[in-house]
Amino acid sequence: MTYRSPVADILFSLEAVAGLPELIESRLEGEFDRETIASAIAEAGRFATEEIAPLNRGADKAGATYANGVVTTPPGFADAYRRWAESGWGGVAAPPEFGGMGLPHLVNVACTEIWNGASMAFALCPLLTEGAIGALKTYGSRELLDRYLEPMVAGRWTGTMNLTEPQAGSDLNAVRTRAERAGDGSYRLFGQKIFITYGEHDMAENIVHLVLARLPGAPAGTRGLSLFLAPKFLVNDDGSLGARNDLRCASIEHKLGIHGSPTCVMLFGESDGAKAWLVGEENRGLAAMFVMMNAARLAVGTQGVAIAERAYQQALEFARERKQGRSAKGGDAMAPIIQHPDVQRMLMTMKAYVHASRGICHLTAAALDLASHGRTEQERKAGLERAALLTPIAKAFSTDLGDEATSIGVQIHGGMGFIEETGAAQHMRDSRIAAIYEGANGIHAIDLVLRKLPLDGGATARNEIIFVHDVARAVAEYGAAGFGETAAQLSEAADALDQATHAMRTWLASDSESALAGASPYLRLFGLTLGGACLAKAGLAAANRAAKGDPSELARVALARFYAEKILPVAPGLARIVASGAAPLAAYETVLADVL
Amino acid sequence: MTYRSPVADILFSLEAVAGLPELIESRLEGEFDRETIASAIAEAGRFATEEIAPLNRGADKAGATYANGVVTTPPGFADAYRRWAESGWGGVAAPPEFGGMGLPHLVNVACTEIWNGASMAFALCPLLTEGAIGALKTYGSRELLDRYLEPMVAGRWTGTMNLTEPQAGSDLNAVRTRAERAGDGSYRLFGQKIFITYGEHDMAENIVHLVLARLPGAPAGTRGLSLFLAPKFLVNDDGSLGARNDLRCASIEHKLGIHGSPTCVMLFGESDGAKAWLVGEENRGLAAMFVMMNAARLAVGTQGVAIAERAYQQALEFARERKQGRSAKGGDAMAPIIQHPDVQRMLMTMKAYVHASRGICHLTAAALDLASHGRTEQERKAGLERAALLTPIAKAFSTDLGDEATSIGVQIHGGMGFIEETGAAQHMRDSRIAAIYEGANGIHAIDLVLRKLPLDGGATARNEIIFVHDVARAVAEYGAAGFGETAAQLSEAADALDQATHAMRTWLASDSESALAGASPYLRLFGLTLGGACLAKAGLAAANRAAKGDPSELARVALARFYAEKILPVAPGLARIVASGAAPLAAYETVLADVL
Repeated sequence: MTYRSPVADILFSLEAVAGLPELIESRLEGEFDRETIASAIAEAGRFATEEIAPLNRGADKAGATYANGVVTTPPGFADAYRRWAESGWGGVAAPPEFGGMGLPHLVNVACTEIWNGASMAFALCPLLTEGAIGALKTYGSRELLDRYLEPMVAGRWTGTMNLTEPQAGSDLNAVRTRAERAGDGSYRLFGQKIFITYGEHDMAENIVHLVLARLPGAPAGTRGLSLFLAPKFLVNDDGSLGARNDLRCASIEHKLGIHGSPTCVMLFGESDGAKAWLVGEENRGLAAMFVMMNAARLAVGTQGVAIAERAYQQALEFARERKQGRSAKGGDAMAPIIQHPDVQRMLMTMKAYVHASRGICHLTAAALDLASHGRTEQERKAGLERAALLTPIAKAFSTDLGDEATSIGVQIHGGMGFIEETGAAQHMRDSRIAAIYEGANGIHAIDLVLRKLPLDGGATARNEIIFVHDVARAVAEYGAAGFGETAAQLSEAADALDQATHAMRTWLASDSESALAGASPYLRLFGLTLGGACLAKAGLAAANRAAKGDPSELARVALARFYAEKILPVAPGLARIVASGAAPLAAYETVLADVL
Repeated sequence: MTYRSPVADILFSLEAVAGLPELIESRLEGEFDRETIASAIAEAGRFATEEIAPLNRGADKAGATYANGVVTTPPGFADAYRRWAESGWGGVAAPPEFGGMGLPHLVNVACTEIWNGASMAFALCPLLTEGAIGALKTYGSRELLDRYLEPMVAGRWTGTMNLTEPQAGSDLNAVRTRAERAGDGSYRLFGQKIFITYGEHDMAENIVHLVLARLPGAPAGTRGLSLFLAPKFLVNDDGSLGARNDLRCASIEHKLGIHGSPTCVMLFGESDGAKAWLVGEENRGLAAMFVMMNAARLAVGTQGVAIAERAYQQALEFARERKQGRSAKGGDAMAPIIQHPDVQRMLMTMKAYVHASRGICHLTAAALDLASHGRTEQERKAGLERAALLTPIAKAFSTDLGDEATSIGVQIHGGMGFIEETGAAQHMRDSRIAAIYEGANGIHAIDLVLRKLPLDGGATARNEIIFVHDVARAVAEYGAAGFGETAAQLSEAADALDQATHAMRTWLASDSESALAGASPYLRLFGLTLGGACLAKAGLAAANRAAKGDPSELARVALARFYAEKILPVAPGLARIVASGAAPLAAYETVLADVL
């Protein structure tokens, strides 16, 4: 099993699908050139391939372990993390003011995929740290920034996100963790948080917890939540570490996957309270946390891409080597199973899923870059709204495809796929959390429909449909036979998405149950359609580069065609599933009653 | 987590979908009446619910263990198995001549679901034994029958199926295990078999291995394979156990799921050869093994149904108890998540999958009963061919749905679903093998297309499409509003299946690559359509019984509608995916080349 970070494919997608050259040329004002970016991605790929990826299988077997409040990460993690941090990877997107490289979101999403493809369990630690840096940067006081940001960017300290409590998962209204004012401007926290990724570990000198809690007299619900920073070790004025704070990890979970990543139960304030500092304003914690969550959502979508790519590479290698049956093309010798059409179909499905979902994640990151670097207020607003629209799709669609792709990867391995030593099953187990955490996918579907479709009077969503139609038209005009029915299928899918969008917008005004009932298939339809456009755009770009000798032209065109003809044709059916609204659910109480 | 065998639903499906009353009345010649059958199923359900189901979670944690050739099954398995066997459950479908009850296939498939829903890891042992009994009954010599069958039917001895070798999985041509004639009418076996379910264990007095092996000078490929019986302990003429045979378990696998079921590497003939006896004729082993495999395929499809039902019950209970968010219908209090439309959609999808795939498995069993008990030669032939056609669909479609349903079950649990203690993840892990073993699902799709579509000049497949149209017409004529668009969707799906079938039959003559490329989506389309007909037929039957006060009328009609409007509308898209043939795969070598 020899995994390699797919740096060339990632760079191609950044450039051909997400418009990295335009960003560099006209919006980054000469800050970064193509070579700097390409070599950063290549170097990340090299580090991930050589230093992280080999740890992934062993980390699954060993898992993170817990004893007496101490969490030990799997063999090799701490060393690899130290080298990773020393190489400056913690600062890819962080502000130069605090030691970061300040690279665009597009580069950051590329690196996120690279770390997660190498080891999702490992990469979760930097993923959370990055989210914490983002929230602090936006809402933290100058004092907090000066004290915490530099070591976090440098990777010496890591960050966490403490939202969930036993009674408060998807619904943060129910958060009970209590904060008290200490009188000196600091606070004390009391309560229990669960499912805290890397809440305790042995990879860094300090852990900076961002914690949602409720102040005395705060309003009920999420409008009474404040965000606090509570470090594992208190930090002295000179930046050195002081006493242990009153917080600890009580246990870690035994999980289906990502065994290398400790998922902690955290106890705050068992004696006099965990010392904490406010991030942002009192009772405005959710807004601050959302900065972190939005970044994390795109990152989790990218995990779906990453794990699917890893599963694909492993299945591809197996299918080339494993001989069973004779080729349909004849001959008596046993053939590598890659010669069987059904195996080709499975492998191409995996690859198409990777490229489609990667494209969507890259479009989302490009929108975030536009939001930051747009030349006009209007451009920045459009970028922000496009990112808002695409984030739930990037998160949910990519992680659903990650689950499907990793399961196909197991299937290609046959009986060997079910044996843990093979490693294919690990990808399926690891992948499975991504559709759940950072908001279960059904919640993103609702977010897409209720909050994102109305953006800019519906224009934000409409623009995506226009984008798909534009790509379809460009494919039709290009006219290469290799595209097969791509233009027609894409255009049909865009029409289906258009109809479903109209139905949704009508229901938003009059029949929210129908909008909610159709949200998940609607998100699927949106993702499938947009993914097809990403693949076709990549195919067109490769074809246009063919004059310059792009060797991937045929592959990218054929992959777009495969997706258009073998995956996308269910789009009109999905639109009709959406269109049936809430009526088929009306009798749910009877249907789900006990009739055993 | 309180699982209960769904005996009422199973019985309803047997009667309303699969025609059990007609079988009893006109073909079983008064051998069994409805009460006998209903009470056998109810008693099986009681035993499974009380004695087997509680062991399932612990069995996953403890797993089967191996030390020095000895396999220890999880706590409780051996005791439960003994009571199960003593209650006579090993003889449900077995011939009365050897102590069996000789009940119809329909009752047997019901019991198979019941055991597997309680614990798939446990139920695999009887599942394999039943297959071995079937092969012996058909092909075994009188002497073998007299010596082995009675204790196997009584469950004192269990059976296994030794096909796979490291180089011979899907492709049995490559089997290398060697048989030698011993001169006294017996044989000696030498070789290694892998993935042998319950190849060694502590639940029974003896283990009867059926082993595919190759005699000296046998033709190459599967036409040179013979089937042998090799017991763990040799059996004396008086039926008592003699010396240990020269075969042993070398190790067991560390698997993704079904941890309670030992998956063994078996070594035959490390010293002077494992004593064995021929089953059937020399070099005709595959035919005998196919008797076993066909029965096992329907049983594995039934595992898909069973595990989906178990996951559904658990998710339903969780969704009723877990409170998060407010109901869309208003109110400030936290609502059980079952009140959220997207959760209703997920739960109803799970339930619809269970009922659709159960219906298909029951239709298959009914066809087998017709093959055995048909009044005319023509009727029996039609039964045999229908069973041949439906078996790959029952196996592959049901197990694919099992994977999807168990994954939805995890999703409904949110973060808790990823925690192993919850048990939802176990169902997903257990389920995953069913799409792989007894022929990977892609192979069943190929079997359906290449070998089953041509049956009776295409009439066997055509009859299923007519069946769906008939149900659609009956729903339209019944005219109840509760059915919504069921008739129209069913009829459209049947048309789509018809078109895809025509394309397939044309390709079989002229373009086998296209037939192979479309086989898996074709099987999916076939299963989806047939499943919809099963649900609608159940809905109609419930509606017709409503006059007699069937309390499930509304539920079954509404479930049929849900499936028709929320699941089935992708059927025409699947037909178009089939119709695109092999062209989108033509460039596979380029697409799957390394372009990293």
